[in-house]
Amino acid sequence: MEKERKDCVSVMHGCVIITMDGEQRVFRDGGIVIEEDKIKAIGQSKDIIDEFGDVADEVIDLSGHILLPGLINTHVHTSQQLARGIADDVDLITWLHHRIWPYESNMTEHDSYLSTLLCGIELIHSGVTCLAEAGGQHVSGMASAVNLLGLRACLTQSTMDSGHGLPSSWAALSTHDCIQSQKDNYHKFHNTAQGRIRIWFGIRQIMNSTHSLLLQTRDAATQLKTGIHMHVAEIPYENQLVMDVHKINHGTVTYLDKIHFLQNNLLAAHSVWVDHNEISLLSKAGVKVSHCPAAAMRMLGFAPVREMLDAGICVSLGTDGAPSNNRMSIVDEMYLASLINKGREVYANGTTDPTALPAETILRMVTVNGAKSVLWDDELGSLEVGKKADIVVVNPSSWAMVPLHDCISSIVYCMRSENIVSVMCNGLWIMKNKKIINVDEEEVISKAKLASVELLKRAGIKLPSRMNVI
Amino acid sequence: MEKERKDCVSVMHGCVIITMDGEQRVFRDGGIVIEEDKIKAIGQSKDIIDEFGDVADEVIDLSGHILLPGLINTHVHTSQQLARGIADDVDLITWLHHRIWPYESNMTEHDSYLSTLLCGIELIHSGVTCLAEAGGQHVSGMASAVNLLGLRACLTQSTMDSGHGLPSSWAALSTHDCIQSQKDNYHKFHNTAQGRIRIWFGIRQIMNSTHSLLLQTRDAATQLKTGIHMHVAEIPYENQLVMDVHKINHGTVTYLDKIHFLQNNLLAAHSVWVDHNEISLLSKAGVKVSHCPAAAMRMLGFAPVREMLDAGICVSLGTDGAPSNNRMSIVDEMYLASLINKGREVYANGTTDPTALPAETILRMVTVNGAKSVLWDDELGSLEVGKKADIVVVNPSSWAMVPLHDCISSIVYCMRSENIVSVMCNGLWIMKNKKIINVDEEEVISKAKLASVELLKRAGIKLPSRMNVI
Repeated sequence: MEKERKDCVSVMHGCVIITMDGEQRVFRDGGIVIEEDKIKAIGQSKDIIDEFGDVADEVIDLSGHILLPGLINTHVHTSQQLARGIADDVDLITWLHHRIWPYESNMTEHDSYLSTLLCGIELIHSGVTCLAEAGGQHVSGMASAVNLLGLRACLTQSTMDSGHGLPSSWAALSTHDCIQSQKDNYHKFHNTAQGRIRIWFGIRQIMNSTHSLLLQTRDAATQLKTGIHMHVAEIPYENQLVMDVHKINHGTVTYLDKIHFLQNNLLAAHSVWVDHNEISLLSKAGVKVSHCPAAAMRMLGFAPVREMLDAGICVSLGTDGAPSNNRMSIVDEMYLASLINKGREVYANGTTDPTALPAETILRMVTVNGAKSVLWDDELGSLEVGKKADIVVVNPSSWAMVPLHDCISSIVYCMRSENIVSVMCNGLWIMKNKKIINVDEEEVISKAKLASVELLKRAGIKLPSRMNVI
Repeated sequence: MEKERKDCVSVMHGCVIITMDGEQRVFRDGGIVIEEDKIKAIGQSKDIIDEFGDVADEVIDLSGHILLPGLINTHVHTSQQLARGIADDVDLITWLHHRIWPYESNMTEHDSYLSTLLCGIELIHSGVTCLAEAGGQHVSGMASAVNLLGLRACLTQSTMDSGHGLPSSWAALSTHDCIQSQKDNYHKFHNTAQGRIRIWFGIRQIMNSTHSLLLQTRDAATQLKTGIHMHVAEIPYENQLVMDVHKINHGTVTYLDKIHFLQNNLLAAHSVWVDHNEISLLSKAGVKVSHCPAAAMRMLGFAPVREMLDAGICVSLGTDGAPSNNRMSIVDEMYLASLINKGREVYANGTTDPTALPAETILRMVTVNGAKSVLWDDELGSLEVGKKADIVVVNPSSWAMVPLHDCISSIVYCMRSENIVSVMCNGLWIMKNKKIINVDEEEVISKAKLASVELLKRAGIKLPSRMNVI
């Protein structure tokens, strides 16, 4: 049911507005008008107040603040939030087989709900209004949490129909089961929560997918006009396995091209180990790439992000899940994306390049590119008339961002979640003055703590001690 | 003048205490007793309360909190805080010759004072109690700010006696001027502010130092029993120049060894471009290295940190200055140090190593290694009886750190400045419940904004616009 909207027309004015529109307009002293869930007008403060000041139900003076489009996190495992800290400083096999799979396969629907609530709170504090779930356990639980928080999301079920070492409950699933349950989710949840929830198809990774699952997923997503979220080319071992099994000359992307899986509704996460030809394949097919700098540095390697952007690929940013990061802040991810890709030039070309991926490019990645990546750029990604009112309010007048000589670079290189004061999604505040509006933060934290301890017990996960705890 | 201490004996109890002592003790339910500026006792809460509960002037229940030793930032340009954002996304020559040098050479003593105040506020919010200034403009201004804030610091004057393209006021300085002004600073400020300030010698970098400056600095520091802070082996060009000029087979470190400059009172910042033999030279001489992950990624390259630690070198962490980072948070630097050095293994060995630089190592780098690096480990770096009461109080019960399955890794990978609630230095609170105690934060911010705009005008620095600002 649509929440009651007390104020039909709101005016916010007196602030810097970074629109991220096609003309790259930044209003020094801007105003914006919100009607219901949409942006009705945007312009100079004076003009906006002159035209709408009298008819507005609410006029908010945001002097000293900066407005941004809601940030978009294009790869996040909301179901993994309760697993934060369970797999730090361990090798990949331990990470997957002894920590993550036991954790995920023991989750209840309520665990997924709590996990997504906790994750959503962290995302909102970092200015996220829209997320692309990377593939979680219980879409029903995730959808309830997203609905309640007031966020926007493309939800995806973690999907595997083959592979070694899978927990028994997963190993029992057939290809048909995998496709059918996702279709069911689609029919139940797609376009619910006032249109804020969309259902996508998921492929966890190629090593856990039959040929048939890939093709049926492609066709089902095309038929239902929705997207596919898949981890692609994460580690050299994956590419090697694909080459060995399918007798091709490079890895996952080459294979996916061969079976006509690469399409413009595919959101490929990570895409670290892709060669020049594969970058070209991704670009030609209009595949979107979610770059997750923290997880890449910790577990995967250096994605050729500059090369992908140069090739015209739409690259956006993701936090990945709490056990691979562990901060779930797209604000930190912006900072990391800049640093890592400037530093990566040493790996690629021998010296760093401080000019690589400048701040305006990074800001585009979390806004307009994010919107394209989730196939929602007709309504999201910039502050423009007719688009959804997904807005972040930043207070730059704190020790973290002062002095503010370069507003755009400060947003990317200095801003912290501490600077994000209010967040609006779909025309409604979901955080105001740092207070999450629709849930009681303390209560969620307290329930999540208990649930996560119980879940680890059920999963039989015990962590070694790092120090002499007495 | 010593500040009045209202409470002679304070007891804090009920908290997790990560001591970082030689036995790596972590008290699950610990208590600590502070008398004047020192730690008088530490142990289990019950024992501490039994013994000191009745005699304490103040008993603080810190249930649910974590106590850490004050964090130590071993490379920070406090004079550059007003320059945040003036040199983002530009090449190194533009960075140095057209932005940083004009900025620094136009600073007044009051600018240095304000800059250090603003920087200090940010450092305290990230849990820093002790900093090593990398070489700033006006030691008198820096010292006033450090004294007022209640911080601890090893202050260093930016020192150059040669080199191309120097601003005229700097080019006029002789080697004698450089040494004499540092000796003057030493006699005026060393061991002031209740012993919280120490004066070190500085060498900005080898390309701006004559042979004579290096040797006189070494001898003066030895004579006065203090340290030397120097940028070492930052870029390949530096090494090449040193090789060409001095006819040696590798760069700065090899040359410094040849002239007997490498000693255990040298704090070498960055040390990115060092080879296997040079690592061995640094290790043998007991040189300390300050690793600054953000600045390295952005401007310099991948320092061989794992190799340096393996070789027994004391490696600590630094934020570097605001125009190279731009976040001045040692908390973020811990997170980065872990990620970058796990990822660096791809560059060094072909695949990432998620087990490289585990959380406990990183935590050691900002505490015990930091203390050794600033030659102050007899009194700092761990929570032990007899050491100075430099303490950080962390509240982990927020969305950023919940759930807390692994306390040590959560401190390193999840904690943000938001989680740091109180900071004590030398037995006195310098931040309590996120409020900076000794200065008015708003007032400093407001003055710093104005001063920085004026300074940029004087220096003739104008920044290009990144977007269409209207």
